[in-house]
Amino acid sequence: MSATTHIALGPAPDPLLTEAVVRGGAVVSPLDEADALVWAGGVEDFPRSLPDRLTWVQLPAAGVEDWFDAHLIPEDSPITWTSAADAFSATVAEHALTLLLAGVRALPAHLAATTWSQQELFHQVGTLRGTTVAVVGAGGIGKALIPMLAALGANTIAINRSGSPVPGAIETLPTNRLNEVWSRADHFVLAAPATTATYHLVGEKELAQMKPGAWVVNVARGSLVDTDALVCALRDHAISGAGLDVTDPEPLPDGHPLWTLPNVIVTPHDSNPPAVRPPAYAEHVALNVARFVAGEPLAARIDPVVGY
Amino acid sequence: MSATTHIALGPAPDPLLTEAVVRGGAVVSPLDEADALVWAGGVEDFPRSLPDRLTWVQLPAAGVEDWFDAHLIPEDSPITWTSAADAFSATVAEHALTLLLAGVRALPAHLAATTWSQQELFHQVGTLRGTTVAVVGAGGIGKALIPMLAALGANTIAINRSGSPVPGAIETLPTNRLNEVWSRADHFVLAAPATTATYHLVGEKELAQMKPGAWVVNVARGSLVDTDALVCALRDHAISGAGLDVTDPEPLPDGHPLWTLPNVIVTPHDSNPPAVRPPAYAEHVALNVARFVAGEPLAARIDPVVGY
Repeated sequence: MSATTHIALGPAPDPLLTEAVVRGGAVVSPLDEADALVWAGGVEDFPRSLPDRLTWVQLPAAGVEDWFDAHLIPEDSPITWTSAADAFSATVAEHALTLLLAGVRALPAHLAATTWSQQELFHQVGTLRGTTVAVVGAGGIGKALIPMLAALGANTIAINRSGSPVPGAIETLPTNRLNEVWSRADHFVLAAPATTATYHLVGEKELAQMKPGAWVVNVARGSLVDTDALVCALRDHAISGAGLDVTDPEPLPDGHPLWTLPNVIVTPHDSNPPAVRPPAYAEHVALNVARFVAGEPLAARIDPVVGY
Repeated sequence: MSATTHIALGPAPDPLLTEAVVRGGAVVSPLDEADALVWAGGVEDFPRSLPDRLTWVQLPAAGVEDWFDAHLIPEDSPITWTSAADAFSATVAEHALTLLLAGVRALPAHLAATTWSQQELFHQVGTLRGTTVAVVGAGGIGKALIPMLAALGANTIAINRSGSPVPGAIETLPTNRLNEVWSRADHFVLAAPATTATYHLVGEKELAQMKPGAWVVNVARGSLVDTDALVCALRDHAISGAGLDVTDPEPLPDGHPLWTLPNVIVTPHDSNPPAVRPPAYAEHVALNVARFVAGEPLAARIDPVVGY
């Protein structure tokens, strides 16, 4: 006799996720009868207490600081918490690559032109080929980005906590050697989680070490960059430009210099657009339900102590 | 006793190319003593007659219609002519990918925004992942683009003259089945040579068959697209947008609607920017000189009858 695995869906049932649970080999049940909860809403509707029976909660966001801020994930939680980090890695990595290529190929200047300004633009157009890109934070997004960069002939220096080699990177540095990377790499993609350790990871000192041709792309969280220092570096042309899907403050207020600096591309935290999200999340849920049913380790586990 | 291979450089000696000739195993000689000519200039300075002794001419452009228009490459030429097509394939492919990603991710609308317009922009942001991209013309540029698209999770339908399978494409169609592709693919990259057969390859009829989300990217020659039909399709939102490195007419005149349509990215034929060109050309020359010295088939051979 094999036990049936019961999964609750919240805040409301959803056809895509119901199908994903069934595909993963479980059945959809009410929360008080469930072994696990797959959540598709925000933090505000999330249950303030969970049944003792529950052993796994799947959250629908890649960055889950909202749940930590609301003290919903205690350090000693007996529950296994997973995020949707892996689900959206490839689409966010695609966005990062788009911002980086648009920068290196000078698309902002091209889109501003209303005349055939070949002589003005020729020297602004560069290539990623042969360049070295530092990918700061080699989690799901960073790992998804590396083969995209490799296909374009760019080399990646990956930075992660342990420094254990990341597949596809020419070199992996541990975070305690991060200071070496600012002068070495040609461009930077920030894909690290928002923690106290990554707050203002890129500030005045780091920007001053970068090459004049550098583009800084941030698809992580606005707090990783000291915005005032970045604005200064961009105004002084100390670096080439910035592609920002996230900002600090966020939303970026009207009239902020980042809106009008010519070497900045701002996208309003839309690297993982809603239309692309539900099928990607359902895919992730089906995979994790299958692992849960089989008793295998779950993907995108959250560490309640570290905070992501 | 092995014969020394003599290569002339024109219109003037050049340190990068001299080094490339030596690296390829030959020596630099005056034109009247040379076995081959490696050209680094335009068509206007090109010798109107060539010494009988010459068996190979290397031209510095990827598209060599200027030399055909000037009747410098006769159909029955006893000389082997090579272009620099392969030399710049990867950088032009990178440009095509940049235009396509910028389109699919709605960068023109983002760059025009001066306020955090998340609700307006969210539904405009798409992904290349899971889409089908038709690469029309699977020469050097097309072949370089396919693995870049594959790294982003996009599928390629390649179109070439023979229909013989192109590595990495999910399907290859011969040009006589090109009519099937307009309604099937999600996006289009034009990378075919400019010939009478490719003139206005994309016109009113083809645009009418495309999906509303389609982006058309042209990194080949302006003549492949019927500009007036494209402007109509863009104004009517019959397709999503166009990324054009080449235009017809070219240069695109001031005041042309393509300059101001919001869903168009024009780059003034700078997919292969001067700063990137000399090292890439020297690399190609070194490779072809080595093949010439060894008596092996040369890369990027021009067919004097076909015209490219």
